[in-house]
Order: sequence, then C-alpha cells, then structure tokens
Amino acid sequence: MSARNSADHGRDIPEATVARLPVYLRALTTLADQGTSTCSSEHLAAAVGVNSAKLRKDLSYLGSYGTRGVGYDVAYLRYQIAREIGLTQDWPVIVVGIGNLGQALASFSGFRSRGFRIVALLDADESRHGEVVSGLPVEPFDDLARIAREHGVAIGVIATPAHAAQDVADAMVDAGITSILNFAPSVLQVPEGVDVRKVDLSIELQILAYHEQRKLPVAADVDGVGEVSA
Amino acid sequence: MSARNSADHGRDIPEATVARLPVYLRALTTLADQGTSTCSSEHLAAAVGVNSAKLRKDLSYLGSYGTRGVGYDVAYLRYQIAREIGLTQDWPVIVVGIGNLGQALASFSGFRSRGFRIVALLDADESRHGEVVSGLPVEPFDDLARIAREHGVAIGVIATPAHAAQDVADAMVDAGITSILNFAPSVLQVPEGVDVRKVDLSIELQILAYHEQRKLPVAADVDGVGEVSA
Repeated sequence: MSARNSADHGRDIPEATVARLPVYLRALTTLADQGTSTCSSEHLAAAVGVNSAKLRKDLSYLGSYGTRGVGYDVAYLRYQIAREIGLTQDWPVIVVGIGNLGQALASFSGFRSRGFRIVALLDADESRHGEVVSGLPVEPFDDLARIAREHGVAIGVIATPAHAAQDVADAMVDAGITSILNFAPSVLQVPEGVDVRKVDLSIELQILAYHEQRKLPVAADVDGVGEVSA
Repeated sequence: MSARNSADHGRDIPEATVARLPVYLRALTTLADQGTSTCSSEHLAAAVGVNSAKLRKDLSYLGSYGTRGVGYDVAYLRYQIAREIGLTQDWPVIVVGIGNLGQALASFSGFRSRGFRIVALLDADESRHGEVVSGLPVEPFDDLARIAREHGVAIGVIATPAHAAQDVADAMVDAGITSILNFAPSVLQVPEGVDVRKVDLSIELQILAYHEQRKLPVAADVDGVGEVSA
C-alpha cells in the first residue's frame, strides 16, 4: 500500500508496514513467553498471517535481516520493533467518555504493558465526576486542557457518543493533543499535523460477513444475483 | 497486499480491498445522509483516505466503474458494496462475555444498522444470568450450542478475558459458528474453514505512537539512537 501519513516525515516505512509492526510485536511477545529465543521468518510470518517475503521486507525497513540458518533473535527483534514504534517511551493517554466502552478501555491491561499509561478519565456528565474507574477518578471534561498540560498528554482517546466526538476532538486539539484514537462512529475534522485513527467496531464484523456469505449457498443471497457462486 | 482468506473461494477480491469496502460504505452513507447523489472517485477517495486510482481499482472488482464526468451513483454504489459484503442479509450475532466491553458492544448502534443483529448475550458468571443488557437477558454460556442453533448464529463475538477466549472459541466452533470476532488479547486456534478476526484495541494506539514519536525532538527517543531524525 502506498498510503503515507503526513506526520511520517523522514523515514521511508510504508503505512501498511507500520500497521503490521504491532502485530509482529504481539507474535514475538507470545514466542518469548513460550521461551523461544530465535525464530525463522517462515515461523513468524505464519504466526502473523503474512507471507515470509512480506515479513522479511517489512523487517528490512528496521534494518533487521535475521541470520541465515538461524532466523531472528526474538528478544532483539522485539526491542527493535518496540523502539521503532516508540513503545520504549512512556505515552500518557487520556480517555474521554467513560461509558461502558470507556470503562472497558480504562481497565484494558494491554495498554499499560505497551507503554500507554492512562493518566486521566474525563466525562462531561457531572454525576460521574469523582467516581473511581480502574483506580482513576472520573474528572470533568472542562478540565481537559489543564489535565493534558499537567501530564504532557500526547494521545487522546474518544469513547463518547457520535454527536459529542467532534467537540471532544476540537478540545483535544486546542489542548495540544496531536494524536487521537476515535471510537465514536463519526468522521472527525482535525487540522494538519494531527493524526486520527478510527476504530469502527463494526468493520471487522463486515469483513467476517463478506467471507461468511461465501460459505452460504447461492439461495442465501437474498437479491438472488448469486454473488456467492464461484 | 496479497494475503487471501481461506474462505474466500471463487471471487478474486484481494483481502486488502475487502477490508476497504466497509470504509467506502461508511463514507458513501455519510454522503447520502448529506443529500449527495453522485460523487467523483477523487471525492470518495479523499473522504476515505486512499488515492483515487486505488479506489477505482477496488470498485472495479465489484464491476463498478462510475460514469465519466459524473462519477459514481452514491445510492447504487452503496447497494453494490452492501450486497458484496453481504449486508443485504440479516446476520444473527451472539456476544460471549458481558463485561464492560460486552455491554458496550451490546449497546453499539453501528451493528444493527449494518445488518448485524445481536440475538443473545452469554456469560459464564451465574450472578449475571437474567440481567437485562440493552434489552437482552444475559444467558448461561453453557447454553451456547442451543442458542446458536435456535437463532442460526453464524458470527460469534468473544469479549471475555484472555484466559477464557480459547474455550469460548472451541464452544463456538462445536456449535457450528464459522466466523469469530475476537476482542480478547489472545491468539485463537480454530479449524480450517473458521474465520477469526482479531480486534486489538492497542494496535491503533501503537500506530499513533509511531507517528507521534516522529513529531518529537530526537532527545525524546529515550535510547538516544535518534530514530526520529529525518
């Protein structure tokens, strides 16, 4: 894929490769947990679900080529990828919108283990303020700028309803937050230099549906066009 | 990307294109809501964040080429994509694991609007059984097979802790479920013919961190290697 991110200046790592690095890291962590110290590109590629040529190409952007006949050093490759992504740093994160999803995110162990430290939970609902969720008090949304400044927050997570998401994004941008992870089902307008990643919980379901449809008999295709026939 | 899904027999749509179809659909829905009846490939491509050549190539797999000087008919293209994905069908879905994430998924409006009908919520915790979440009672996990059979469930969503995910996946497979959306931070082993899509809530954050790191001065790279210098 040739898509590039405006913030990715200098280094020439394709966006598709960037998107796979966390997946490689997760697979390597599993291997390390199993006590595996080295692995072949074929083994790692299989664990991740890409072909080994693509894996080797991806890792070559990190200057990592493995050792012929030995493969990759799991511990060192983990470090290389973590450093490349930036996970060797500490990333203070705030979450805005402490409904079920926000609470799920606040309690998600996978953030902390990867260097993402949730430093504050914000909600506009006064009745929630002071409530403690996963060890953090729910704070007023109006305090976003102060909280972001105090903690040096670079990444903001939006877990509000769709109608509130743009206002939250605007406030985050005003507060100097330059990376936004948006769980709300809405498209956000942000200025140049601010990165937004969107998580649409239904998109993975739609991809499953595409394949599921192809397991069904033609008759199941309600409009009868027979899209599912080979 | 050349990655193909084992269940995608017959039609020759690359996996990367399949992954973009729901994104195009979302953009087209936004355009339709705005009263737009036709749009150029450039406009749609910009709304989605791909280049227009890639967009035209993707849509050509659907046999949709637009009209020179006019562009694409928004309503018809929406129908073509929805039919291709299978959203013109009704997809009964069950969710296992009714913690904060499971509750967030149960109340997520974006599923129903795309043909995904959550027909049952299951949890192994007896103390939750009978509790009503988003209009559905929480039912015993042990009833999974009966419930899946009664509703003709094809897609199962796992929102349990990591340690429980494989057991849930095994039970889903035994119950004849052939598509699994896994929110648990664990790698699932499933037989051939069963599709698993994994949602790792931290991966999008890691992609943001990669770009965020490149906005920081070199000094912020704690190991001092200066990866962020252009």
